[in-house]
Amino acid sequence: MSTEQVSVSLPYVGGKVTPQHPLGPLTAAEIKESTRLIKGLWPSNTDLQFKVITLQEPSKAELAPFLAAEHAGTSTPTVERKSFVVYYIRNTDKLHEAIVSLSLGKVERNVRLGPNIHSNADGDEIVNVERVALEDEQVKAEIAKLQLPEGTVVISDPWIYGSDGVNEGLFTDDKRVFQCFLYVRDPSNSSELDSNHYAMPLSISPVVSAETMKVTRIDYLPTGADNTVKEPTPYKVQPANEYIPEAQTLRTDLKPLNVVQPEGASFQISNFSEQGHAVSWQKWDFKVGFNQREGMVLYDVHYAGRPLFYRLSLSDMAIPYADPRHPYHKKQAFDLGDAGAGIMANNLQLGCDCLGSIYYLSAVLSDDKGEPLEMPNCVCIHEQDAGIGWKHTNYRTGRAAVVRNRELVLQSIITVSNYEYILAFQFNQAGEVMYEVRATGILSTQPIDEGLSVPWGTVVHPGVLAAHHQHIFSLRVDPMIDGPLNRVVFDEAHPMPRSDFNPHGVGYTVNETPVTTSGGYDLNYDANRIFKIQNASVKNPVNGKPVAYKIMAPPFQKILADKDSYHAKRAEFADHNIYVTSYKDGELYAGGKYTNQSRGGTGVRSFADRKDNVLDDDIVVWVQFGINHVPRIEDFPVMPCEILKVSLKPVNFFDKNPALDVPPSTQTFNKSDLLSVAHHQGGGEAAIGQEGQVCCVKENSKL
Amino acid sequence: MSTEQVSVSLPYVGGKVTPQHPLGPLTAAEIKESTRLIKGLWPSNTDLQFKVITLQEPSKAELAPFLAAEHAGTSTPTVERKSFVVYYIRNTDKLHEAIVSLSLGKVERNVRLGPNIHSNADGDEIVNVERVALEDEQVKAEIAKLQLPEGTVVISDPWIYGSDGVNEGLFTDDKRVFQCFLYVRDPSNSSELDSNHYAMPLSISPVVSAETMKVTRIDYLPTGADNTVKEPTPYKVQPANEYIPEAQTLRTDLKPLNVVQPEGASFQISNFSEQGHAVSWQKWDFKVGFNQREGMVLYDVHYAGRPLFYRLSLSDMAIPYADPRHPYHKKQAFDLGDAGAGIMANNLQLGCDCLGSIYYLSAVLSDDKGEPLEMPNCVCIHEQDAGIGWKHTNYRTGRAAVVRNRELVLQSIITVSNYEYILAFQFNQAGEVMYEVRATGILSTQPIDEGLSVPWGTVVHPGVLAAHHQHIFSLRVDPMIDGPLNRVVFDEAHPMPRSDFNPHGVGYTVNETPVTTSGGYDLNYDANRIFKIQNASVKNPVNGKPVAYKIMAPPFQKILADKDSYHAKRAEFADHNIYVTSYKDGELYAGGKYTNQSRGGTGVRSFADRKDNVLDDDIVVWVQFGINHVPRIEDFPVMPCEILKVSLKPVNFFDKNPALDVPPSTQTFNKSDLLSVAHHQGGGEAAIGQEGQVCCVKENSKL
Repeated sequence: MSTEQVSVSLPYVGGKVTPQHPLGPLTAAEIKESTRLIKGLWPSNTDLQFKVITLQEPSKAELAPFLAAEHAGTSTPTVERKSFVVYYIRNTDKLHEAIVSLSLGKVERNVRLGPNIHSNADGDEIVNVERVALEDEQVKAEIAKLQLPEGTVVISDPWIYGSDGVNEGLFTDDKRVFQCFLYVRDPSNSSELDSNHYAMPLSISPVVSAETMKVTRIDYLPTGADNTVKEPTPYKVQPANEYIPEAQTLRTDLKPLNVVQPEGASFQISNFSEQGHAVSWQKWDFKVGFNQREGMVLYDVHYAGRPLFYRLSLSDMAIPYADPRHPYHKKQAFDLGDAGAGIMANNLQLGCDCLGSIYYLSAVLSDDKGEPLEMPNCVCIHEQDAGIGWKHTNYRTGRAAVVRNRELVLQSIITVSNYEYILAFQFNQAGEVMYEVRATGILSTQPIDEGLSVPWGTVVHPGVLAAHHQHIFSLRVDPMIDGPLNRVVFDEAHPMPRSDFNPHGVGYTVNETPVTTSGGYDLNYDANRIFKIQNASVKNPVNGKPVAYKIMAPPFQKILADKDSYHAKRAEFADHNIYVTSYKDGELYAGGKYTNQSRGGTGVRSFADRKDNVLDDDIVVWVQFGINHVPRIEDFPVMPCEILKVSLKPVNFFDKNPALDVPPSTQTFNKSDLLSVAHHQGGGEAAIGQEGQVCCVKENSKL
Repeated sequence: MSTEQVSVSLPYVGGKVTPQHPLGPLTAAEIKESTRLIKGLWPSNTDLQFKVITLQEPSKAELAPFLAAEHAGTSTPTVERKSFVVYYIRNTDKLHEAIVSLSLGKVERNVRLGPNIHSNADGDEIVNVERVALEDEQVKAEIAKLQLPEGTVVISDPWIYGSDGVNEGLFTDDKRVFQCFLYVRDPSNSSELDSNHYAMPLSISPVVSAETMKVTRIDYLPTGADNTVKEPTPYKVQPANEYIPEAQTLRTDLKPLNVVQPEGASFQISNFSEQGHAVSWQKWDFKVGFNQREGMVLYDVHYAGRPLFYRLSLSDMAIPYADPRHPYHKKQAFDLGDAGAGIMANNLQLGCDCLGSIYYLSAVLSDDKGEPLEMPNCVCIHEQDAGIGWKHTNYRTGRAAVVRNRELVLQSIITVSNYEYILAFQFNQAGEVMYEVRATGILSTQPIDEGLSVPWGTVVHPGVLAAHHQHIFSLRVDPMIDGPLNRVVFDEAHPMPRSDFNPHGVGYTVNETPVTTSGGYDLNYDANRIFKIQNASVKNPVNGKPVAYKIMAPPFQKILADKDSYHAKRAEFADHNIYVTSYKDGELYAGGKYTNQSRGGTGVRSFADRKDNVLDDDIVVWVQFGINHVPRIEDFPVMPCEILKVSLKPVNFFDKNPALDVPPSTQTFNKSDLLSVAHHQGGGEAAIGQEGQVCCVKENSKL
């Protein structure tokens, strides 16, 4: 990508883009305007705590004609520009949801939610909760009982409170609260701000009201094999377990590996609005948005001009923990709804989070004051080589035809307190879209009596337990495979019965079953069940099969919490591999719009329960995947990435391998380096000069 | 890797290596000597057809003390050097298996096998069978009925005959035969030797005797929806469907991506014998062998001096097809036993099959005359960047710690007629070993009446059917996790019942079950069943758990052919995810030693049926994986790689993340390129000069 071909994302210089494109993320000015209009509803001395100010996406009824006109190059209809705002009257439980018409300069809707709906945490609030927990006199008194070494620094990790235990009197969660887990930094190295406090958990856990910002209760954590809790006793300082490089004896035998793209990257990026980016790469075209909750959102994905997906995003994730004891039984994070994949995104660092020629996208979100918050470099875009794309060697001539598989990657990395998720959309030259999650970061730990083992967690350090937990993700796929009306079908492979036609018992057939009614559906590996999103009205010109994209999702264990538990009620997506629902505007989140201390009934299971027709209709497909993370000691103090990948691959969508026209892999193009003597190749010749140096390699047509 | 650090593999210059290392592949001289000794058994005018001349690996009873002494640096015991030879008296069915003592210069054992044991195909034989099929007068007469355009070139693809149909009179497979499938090259471009004939299948299929090298029968292929066959009628020439680049309009928007390793690679390679290579990389040490059947074999795999695996290799694969009609019902390839992953290995081309600094290994195998056959560049070794290895950002300080995941790859690519497998062992810095298979190449096609659809295959081109088929692989893992006596256990996660301890129904536990008796075992995703290879006598120093490696294998559908079919009887490994057997010398092949036209009873199912103790014993673990390949039209004329990966990962083997000491990912090291304006990073600064150029990036300790 030469610099001439691209517009830069910031600063916006205007003129060439349409700020009001219906899918463009809110601009800083629009955020300010939304805040001004909301504040105008209230007496001027009202202190509002803004939680979300984001684009209210237009209804599909409005959007579809707009996009159609845009693709046709005809004049686009006017679409009213709106923002969606969630806010509290600060230090109250008065939660409001508003829709602001930016086009009309007025608040269109403003309602108070409740009583049991709670908004997400925000960064400012989390820092305040940490402080409140540690400055509380009673908490200090409890900490004193630990007799920590002088100078020891205590750290507070506020957790979303969860919901199990509703209506248990003392432990009610009608009110929005945070459960703080306490740790110490290594007392022998207290000035190290990046000391890994998760290696030193304490057994005291203050609960802080998000409303009053006061400690409302102090829990003692069970540290044995049962649910007994006891008063804090003097703390035994164990050895530290640091992840920072200066605490390690680093290996010295790793030599540099650089990705060099002498002509730049192969993609083009432009602004389709002030904050929205359009990406073109290898026949792919799509728009990229970024919001507080989902982070990256892809819109209007086309391949070679053919429509594939209206919208792709990570919709939700749930992380239920295995320890049933109070207060751990409440640990079930919904990192998107409780915090936000956008707002938690890392500022990515050149050359450390990806290699090669990298383009960064920045975004503007909002803070608790309703002010614009710059999110620099929250998405990186680069290409990667993913090995051989296809190869065939004609053994009769010795000629090999081989192409490499180049991928385009849009990556965002989120830090949710202890944990990291590396989230990436990947595109390749064979018409495939992948969504990759790498789980890394630090385990959420708790104290355990030394020498003890329990079956709901792994001891990862002396006195430190990492409880088992599940990570269950929901990828939302709003398809438009060759048009707006799609269906989901599944293929299964079954043996043919023995018969005159199959006398040897070896035959098998693959048959397709359509999904007609919205609901949750499951993979079945024994039947090789494969779900496909199909357009039944468009047939492959060669074999007459309906065009489709199949969904390749890895196996995962469904949620283990029982179905009457709040964990299961809240994680509405965690019980099926696939949900298929009819499209309804605003149904974006598999776990419901407000996940914090939620009680279920507002997510994808509820959408599916309408039992709508989903055959040849405007449908949404929700793809669940995840891991049951049974910690290994190797996952501490920071875990090697665990990689999960969902692929969407064409099935009878093209008329041949779409990567057939990728130029062959050649040494002239790849410029690899030979490390030893080389030998004659099939019909080509690698002439070798001095030790390990390739002085020339002939390209040849018959190799 | 600097050139000073490595020995080159060929030519062998002697002096520094021990040619008689017990694991060193046979040398050219040893192959010649084996041939000489075998020929000495027979009258001088006897024409022998050599099938295999390979290392007879020493018994583990001999090998283990040798390796122990080698690792201890003490003097190694003498181990008798032997070769294993399989040969026919040419043009007979007289198959022999011999063991030659190279140390003693004599044939130790020479037995005739049979009557229903048949050896693999060899390259010379395949070329002869092709010729015989096409030169047969009756075949020519059948082809004449097709009235092909003048100048049309007919191609013959000989197939291993399979076994279903045993004792069916005419179709008996007591004798070794080849089934030839015929195709034509594009008649409009007959001089193109690399025209894709699989787009133009014929309905005539000659059967050639491997003994007499004569056509014994000509089959007509069914081309309809039933098993009717009919005499050839004039052939309708359809458009070509070529994969070669000159037949495409190549895309022009892909810019170069080079992997540059300015200081060379990080691995060291030396010869442990004339043909054996020792590899050291990032705490890993192992030996690499290469043989006719398995291709790459890894021996004596250690991590940081700790033993992990005696031997790792791809043991077998079976590819049963779905079409039940004669003669397709016989299509079940065992590419290792029927052909050989070693002998079919591609000569890899610099910079086309991998990127970066590449080291090639060459091998010496043998031909049908018993002469050494050079296999240049049959293994490539390189490093690759596999994205982020681990990352954590301390949100309180903004400091990110991130390392990249470097992998070492040993790759071999085999062409088995129409199809390619890209086979790779991969190692990373977190103590993980992966085995990756990429399936690519061309579908095995057959004629189908135009416009017809059948449920056992996909029409991929007008008149061309690609039948469904399964690829089922067996990876043989001979473990020595921290010592010779290991066990296999499996973990399962189950919900806790509701109780006073689990009042909210959210708790779950993970429990371990040992495998005590040899047998086949299966994954169970609903229980998150994970198999581990464990050394029960070595406990993790921190948490007291036995050290282990877990097996992460993808789901696959077990063989669909019914269990009384020869497909199922022969593919002894295809019915379970995991087999655990007691170690016995010589039990290397999951499908049995002689797979060609085999009838079962000699593979891993049979080994397991001994019902041996496998608890804390010398055991072997066989890991099955695969795909049910339901062809898409996108898989033609050459298919985009389908990737399968098995991982072996440490579980409580180390006392923390073994990749903790990987140096941090920095721009100084990675030298990436910024494509747009950049913004201030956490605590670091990227100063940007002219458009898209990074003029300096400060390294900082608090980023």
